[in-house]
Amino acid sequence: MKELPIHIQLQPESDRTLYEQIYEYIRDEIRQGSLLQDEKLPSARLLAEDLQVSRTTVDMAYGQLVSEGYLEARPRQGYFVCAVEGLCVIDPFQKSDKRTVSKQSRQTAEQYDFSPNAIDMHFFPYATWKKITKSILVDANSDMFSLGEPQGDLSLRTTICRYLHGARGVNCEPEQVIVGAGNDYLLLLLEKILGRHVHVAMEDPTYAKAYRIFQSCAYPVTFVPMDENGISVECLRHTDAQVAYVMPAHQYPTGISMPIGRRMELLKWAAEQEGRYLIEDDYDSEFRFKGKPLPSLQASDRNGNVVYIGTFSKAIAPAIRISYMVLPYPLLTRYREACGFYSSTVSRIDQTILNEFIQDGYFERYLNKMRKQYRMKHDLLLTELRAFRKAFRISGSNAGLHVILTDRMGRSEEELARTAQEAGVKVYRMRDFRMKESGGTAAMLILGYAALSPEEIGKGMALLREAWL
Amino acid sequence: MKELPIHIQLQPESDRTLYEQIYEYIRDEIRQGSLLQDEKLPSARLLAEDLQVSRTTVDMAYGQLVSEGYLEARPRQGYFVCAVEGLCVIDPFQKSDKRTVSKQSRQTAEQYDFSPNAIDMHFFPYATWKKITKSILVDANSDMFSLGEPQGDLSLRTTICRYLHGARGVNCEPEQVIVGAGNDYLLLLLEKILGRHVHVAMEDPTYAKAYRIFQSCAYPVTFVPMDENGISVECLRHTDAQVAYVMPAHQYPTGISMPIGRRMELLKWAAEQEGRYLIEDDYDSEFRFKGKPLPSLQASDRNGNVVYIGTFSKAIAPAIRISYMVLPYPLLTRYREACGFYSSTVSRIDQTILNEFIQDGYFERYLNKMRKQYRMKHDLLLTELRAFRKAFRISGSNAGLHVILTDRMGRSEEELARTAQEAGVKVYRMRDFRMKESGGTAAMLILGYAALSPEEIGKGMALLREAWL
Repeated sequence: MKELPIHIQLQPESDRTLYEQIYEYIRDEIRQGSLLQDEKLPSARLLAEDLQVSRTTVDMAYGQLVSEGYLEARPRQGYFVCAVEGLCVIDPFQKSDKRTVSKQSRQTAEQYDFSPNAIDMHFFPYATWKKITKSILVDANSDMFSLGEPQGDLSLRTTICRYLHGARGVNCEPEQVIVGAGNDYLLLLLEKILGRHVHVAMEDPTYAKAYRIFQSCAYPVTFVPMDENGISVECLRHTDAQVAYVMPAHQYPTGISMPIGRRMELLKWAAEQEGRYLIEDDYDSEFRFKGKPLPSLQASDRNGNVVYIGTFSKAIAPAIRISYMVLPYPLLTRYREACGFYSSTVSRIDQTILNEFIQDGYFERYLNKMRKQYRMKHDLLLTELRAFRKAFRISGSNAGLHVILTDRMGRSEEELARTAQEAGVKVYRMRDFRMKESGGTAAMLILGYAALSPEEIGKGMALLREAWL
Repeated sequence: MKELPIHIQLQPESDRTLYEQIYEYIRDEIRQGSLLQDEKLPSARLLAEDLQVSRTTVDMAYGQLVSEGYLEARPRQGYFVCAVEGLCVIDPFQKSDKRTVSKQSRQTAEQYDFSPNAIDMHFFPYATWKKITKSILVDANSDMFSLGEPQGDLSLRTTICRYLHGARGVNCEPEQVIVGAGNDYLLLLLEKILGRHVHVAMEDPTYAKAYRIFQSCAYPVTFVPMDENGISVECLRHTDAQVAYVMPAHQYPTGISMPIGRRMELLKWAAEQEGRYLIEDDYDSEFRFKGKPLPSLQASDRNGNVVYIGTFSKAIAPAIRISYMVLPYPLLTRYREACGFYSSTVSRIDQTILNEFIQDGYFERYLNKMRKQYRMKHDLLLTELRAFRKAFRISGSNAGLHVILTDRMGRSEEELARTAQEAGVKVYRMRDFRMKESGGTAAMLILGYAALSPEEIGKGMALLREAWL
């Protein structure tokens, strides 16, 4: 991979700093497709020499580009251009009429993004949230501005218990609930509870963020293959794993709902040996469209082997940095010993707002509205997908906010994603979620629909029909 | 240990819930000394049967008592009465005139708590905070409810940089600032940045919470003795430490302000070897009463060896779960590689409120008001302490919110703390902050004054005079 020269004409008289000029130049080169995905940039030292600026100036420009997602810093290798989603980045060496750069085509590409991560915030009751906030602030006294309990306010934990019991069959007491600022933080705490050198098994494919967190904890991770019922417990038995991280309700990204038989097998595995645990990430269990809702894995746990993790970021709003973790009693003891002194990461004001939002019935009402909205979009997508049935197998559609298309015609994921992108539609390749190279499997695409309007779903699917059928 | 019968007369017609009645009964029994430390309570199931109420009702009452520190839940053993500080709890088997139970004596004991941790929230501009919150919520759009940057919003980081540069001489760019929900969380992140098996040196005595966090990271910790200028760099050189955690502005709890000479020695130590760092915890640097304010240690750092950590919990309110960490560039690179993907733990709404609070000048105004308040209390305390000069050496009074009294008369810390408590005053023993047993040193007591009113300081000191002089 050769290093690219960066031809910046720095203007010392400009009211933009040198750092900003370098940053903007490289950003625009990437946006315009002059710098391509995976291309390597000159080292900060070289570029600084070349431009006759200080090393710090280049470091700052690169740092800004990394933090905005234009560049990626690969350890001991240097800086590389990232894949910039939705920008319809152009490869200048490959000529294609459809891929000419124009504002139009870029906007189109951004318009139909079937992201499995995005959610619909259109119906979020901002007014209600503001009203509750105001009413709480009216009564807010110095108490509310004091530091709360490390585990979270008892009132909120009690409310979460009640909600989880009713909605997900989770059996727990408020004392087992730890409230924290996001799942990432709770997994950090869990590391302190489980201890070091814990061998973790994960489904493959899985949620890459959780994998990165386990990596940053220096946990050895083994990926266990899945069949149509989820993680293979037989394969799990052949590992040394002590902890398995699973998403039984609607596996991400495969969309598989684990049936009760497999769940019992998994719980049996956990109960067989002292110190084995299952981490159940119940990330989008609120949304289910077909069949009776299956309660959580925790609901079937008789031996205290399940750590249940959930979040309000998906069901309410990503900015609500409130997640919760339900610990089985043996781990609760270890929590109190090892990290019960860590101060709460959620302010009491935010906890009180959320508590009232749930207790006054707004959360249930909002969930019902969103279930209706998502079901409508889900049904529309499945109707549109009927035309695709000859070319693709559709799966993962019973629950959650995305579905899986498996190609029947021997095409590759790359080809399908590329032709979709050329048509202005972004779909997601399963291989980007796979942890091990798995040769020979049919191409699988992930289509999330939560953040698209019904019109956008219709138009996006029409474009895909042209591109793929 | 036998189980105690709880003889509660529940009043179903009361406007207090059953849960509240149970909670209040047990709380009062503990406060009055009818239930003693380490005594075991009946199990929730038994008590529920006995009182003919639901198990949940008792669970909630017990949960509340645990969260308020009256009870302790011991795994697989049940609920036990905690040691309740400052309540002057009576052991009925020990007869002593001074320790008879009366409302009077109990109130006295609670009234004059010279805690070095508490702060004065009396002047907090609740109205302004509420006003800003409201104005932000009026304009709040879905953007504000989306997930922000992992490091924190650029606008807040820029504001923090500007503030730190002006107030503490800290040299940094916004890209070096990591915003997080509390110091504890930032230290967890720092573990991921520094890596494992990092040998840490700490001042002795030190901030016990930080020590516990390093312990929970399995970092080997060496305690380094201090002289009147702070941590002994000579002793530090005899350790294998790679990182030193220090509080140069106003060491907790000794109150020592590290002079510039010692600071330069410390920076020299850090610069001597690749990979050495100083963690500067600047926890209450906003308050200084004598002499010119010394800028931060980071301000003198020419080699990128200082990690600067500060918080708004002390200067604004404990509930504001916003702290910040300024990383030197080598560690910033490691942050991006190792944990730049961890989602922010602070909601964008809270970040925006704080940013406006600072930018609109309210923070500066509030700090000025509190500086005046604290200076007034500080001066009053020192005036009162004049009478103590024969019996005690007074130190640590140039900055921060507590002072140190060193006994000149050969009494023990236990004796002094006990006679103070009998007089209704809570003072803090240095030995509770020491990490190593240090025989032979004179008794040292810590008196924090931030949360007491001038009247309370006066009355408390009058009682101490009687007890000690």
